[in-house]
Amino acid sequence: MSKPKHITIVGAGLVGSLLAVYLNRRGYKVSVFEKRADMRKSNVSAGRSINLALAQRGIHALEQAGLMNDVLPLLIPMKGRMLHEIGSQPEFFPYGQREHEVIYSVSRGGLNNMMMTAAESNSDTEFFFEHELVDVDLKNDHLKFVDLGVGKERSVSFDFLIGADGGGSQVRSELMEACGGKCSAEMLDHDYKELEIPADKDGGFLIDKNSLHIWPRGGFMLIALPNLDGSFTVTLFMPTRGETSFEQISKNNVASFFEEVFPSAAKLMPELETDFCLNPTGDLGTIRCYPWVHDNAMILGDAAHAIVPFHGQGMNCGFEDCAKLDRLLNEFDDDWTRAADEFQKTRKPNADAIADMALENYVIMRDSVSDDLFQKKKVLGFELERRFPRRFIPRYSMVMFHDIPYHDAIQRGLIQDEIMSGLLKGKDDPLDVDYEAAETLIVEKLSELTFAF
Amino acid sequence: MSKPKHITIVGAGLVGSLLAVYLNRRGYKVSVFEKRADMRKSNVSAGRSINLALAQRGIHALEQAGLMNDVLPLLIPMKGRMLHEIGSQPEFFPYGQREHEVIYSVSRGGLNNMMMTAAESNSDTEFFFEHELVDVDLKNDHLKFVDLGVGKERSVSFDFLIGADGGGSQVRSELMEACGGKCSAEMLDHDYKELEIPADKDGGFLIDKNSLHIWPRGGFMLIALPNLDGSFTVTLFMPTRGETSFEQISKNNVASFFEEVFPSAAKLMPELETDFCLNPTGDLGTIRCYPWVHDNAMILGDAAHAIVPFHGQGMNCGFEDCAKLDRLLNEFDDDWTRAADEFQKTRKPNADAIADMALENYVIMRDSVSDDLFQKKKVLGFELERRFPRRFIPRYSMVMFHDIPYHDAIQRGLIQDEIMSGLLKGKDDPLDVDYEAAETLIVEKLSELTFAF
Repeated sequence: MSKPKHITIVGAGLVGSLLAVYLNRRGYKVSVFEKRADMRKSNVSAGRSINLALAQRGIHALEQAGLMNDVLPLLIPMKGRMLHEIGSQPEFFPYGQREHEVIYSVSRGGLNNMMMTAAESNSDTEFFFEHELVDVDLKNDHLKFVDLGVGKERSVSFDFLIGADGGGSQVRSELMEACGGKCSAEMLDHDYKELEIPADKDGGFLIDKNSLHIWPRGGFMLIALPNLDGSFTVTLFMPTRGETSFEQISKNNVASFFEEVFPSAAKLMPELETDFCLNPTGDLGTIRCYPWVHDNAMILGDAAHAIVPFHGQGMNCGFEDCAKLDRLLNEFDDDWTRAADEFQKTRKPNADAIADMALENYVIMRDSVSDDLFQKKKVLGFELERRFPRRFIPRYSMVMFHDIPYHDAIQRGLIQDEIMSGLLKGKDDPLDVDYEAAETLIVEKLSELTFAF
Repeated sequence: MSKPKHITIVGAGLVGSLLAVYLNRRGYKVSVFEKRADMRKSNVSAGRSINLALAQRGIHALEQAGLMNDVLPLLIPMKGRMLHEIGSQPEFFPYGQREHEVIYSVSRGGLNNMMMTAAESNSDTEFFFEHELVDVDLKNDHLKFVDLGVGKERSVSFDFLIGADGGGSQVRSELMEACGGKCSAEMLDHDYKELEIPADKDGGFLIDKNSLHIWPRGGFMLIALPNLDGSFTVTLFMPTRGETSFEQISKNNVASFFEEVFPSAAKLMPELETDFCLNPTGDLGTIRCYPWVHDNAMILGDAAHAIVPFHGQGMNCGFEDCAKLDRLLNEFDDDWTRAADEFQKTRKPNADAIADMALENYVIMRDSVSDDLFQKKKVLGFELERRFPRRFIPRYSMVMFHDIPYHDAIQRGLIQDEIMSGLLKGKDDPLDVDYEAAETLIVEKLSELTFAF
């Protein structure tokens, strides 16, 4: 069974849907099972408008799947962070230094629906909604679902099974159990809640459209990403318990809390109290597990490596999984046993690396973005990249604007940071450093690392 | 020599540069020779800002080359035509009916520079600027250039030669001569001149940013496409000779001519007289030739099939050439003899079809867009597409928003037009037609045609 003809995917989320498109293109018959109802048929506009940041890895995977024409109308460029400190004017910090070094706000629902429709346009692909997975028999290649629409059980056998069923993956649980794999879920002691800044009366944007807005407050923060309709999806990240925490804030005091700590945002959120009350509080965590493959089954995306959202890489990493798997299937002539094994071996260190960087970025976002040394390193990092192109690339840029493996980015990032710390010692002006010494260090310490563009 | 290792491209324009990127990715060593100087080093901003309309075929080719991340910041969506009739308010007519059915204004220079840089980032690719081709020896696989920088001749031998040297292709002339091929240049008796509507003081757009503006005046017309800096590139298309023609309009009377026939545009063009005087008048024509391949040489893009610009497909068609050639090289395992031969055979009828449609579209743009029957067919066409998806697609949409071969689009378009003419006979309301009869006709007359999505 190393060359199956029919692939069964559990989960029609972002990664499952994109994978279906890739497998269509390879000529497979594809069945996708999804617990929820078809979002395209329910009135999604009434619900919350979640958005995500699309960056190079995600764009690359979408273009290799031929989907960019459909993606284009959904994108809003975000050119940098707009920092809102209390008592001062918002200040803008660009993400990159080249024209294309921006990230894109995109609606999760809009993107997911588009990809499902693209996948379905292939007559060899079928989606089964409201199918809840209740049993996985990896020995006999058999699945059991409950069809929630009719309330009946349904048995399905599979040639090859892919679990793209997200952070709470059922396929992962069964796969770990079958092969004695290890799985850890490291929950953050911070939660999040989505809120909204609506559009103005004319559908215009109340704050800068082309920025990712951050109100950093040390131990907690508020962020806002633009939506096509002129509104912003706002997310509050805050400790679960403690002094300033979700435990302490309720409908009664949320308005006064916001007026005190996020005054500039508070006045743009007329529905704050209602939103705070009605919208669920979500938790955040990192899933690490291995192996990802057993017999004729594998997991990918969040199911294999859920990460916290602070680097905006969850979707991008999941999309990159799809593109990598596709490339390995090319390389191994559609021998799934070999492709899946090579996938887990090469992808696992990179998944671990982005998980670490995402956790680290929470501290950066809620705190360091307004830190002096952090800003000096940003300025110097861009200058070093300008002077020594392709030899020095700021770590944020390696992650967001390049396809450099995450693991290489984290390794190079550490060395680069050390080099910059040394150069900046005792300097007030971050551009007034010894560039000859910089070059020597860059050549000496970085050139041995592979730099796979 | 069916599997060359080194490909020589003449012409570093849009098609030559994209082709270089594709061939990089296939692992070839690529040399690109270009007559002009490197646009990236001269001050292009001082020159004219030409823009083009990027549509599905071009987007698809760019995404398959992995360039969309770099293209994204250059795009301005144009959702439809804004018609400016004398004495009435501008009226908007959408190009398509789905969110992604828009076209994108893009700067020719910006796109070309980006692709050259992308191609050059591969160390196996080299560009030679200011190299004018003076001799092609197809028997001995030899080229002679004059290096305009140093004023010396330079001889170059090639493994395989590709002429992407545009409408006035030198490679084409030599190829036709060597193999006794046929070539016709059908010049239009209309010329064009580029003008400008500048941005307002704050860099804003003086007319709607997301439209392609047309001032249709029967035998001639003015169009305007948006630029990223808030300006519009305006093009006047007009007969070369005759009553209202370039022969009759000069610096002395251009202002009064514009005030009379394009009053709403005239008041937005403070530099009209200067621009009219200084900018060159360009001619327009269609090149048809065959074969495109001889020995170890071939031509593609405008060199093989220059067309008039009225369907906005010249660049899109040339980019599609690159994607098709790449796909054929896949199919024939990089056997260039077989791939090139299959390329010319399958591509020629499609190039002829878009040449015809582009000519036809001049009449539509300058005249029929404001015609009643044309507008009724537009409305009915969208409705038939909505009711019979994937079986009826308006011809404009087939060309701009799909990858359906041009030749199929022209054939289906003729039948669809006939069907709509019949349905609309004696009807005032274009939606009040017999849809059962429509379905019968669509099934009967269209289903036999291959519909390669």
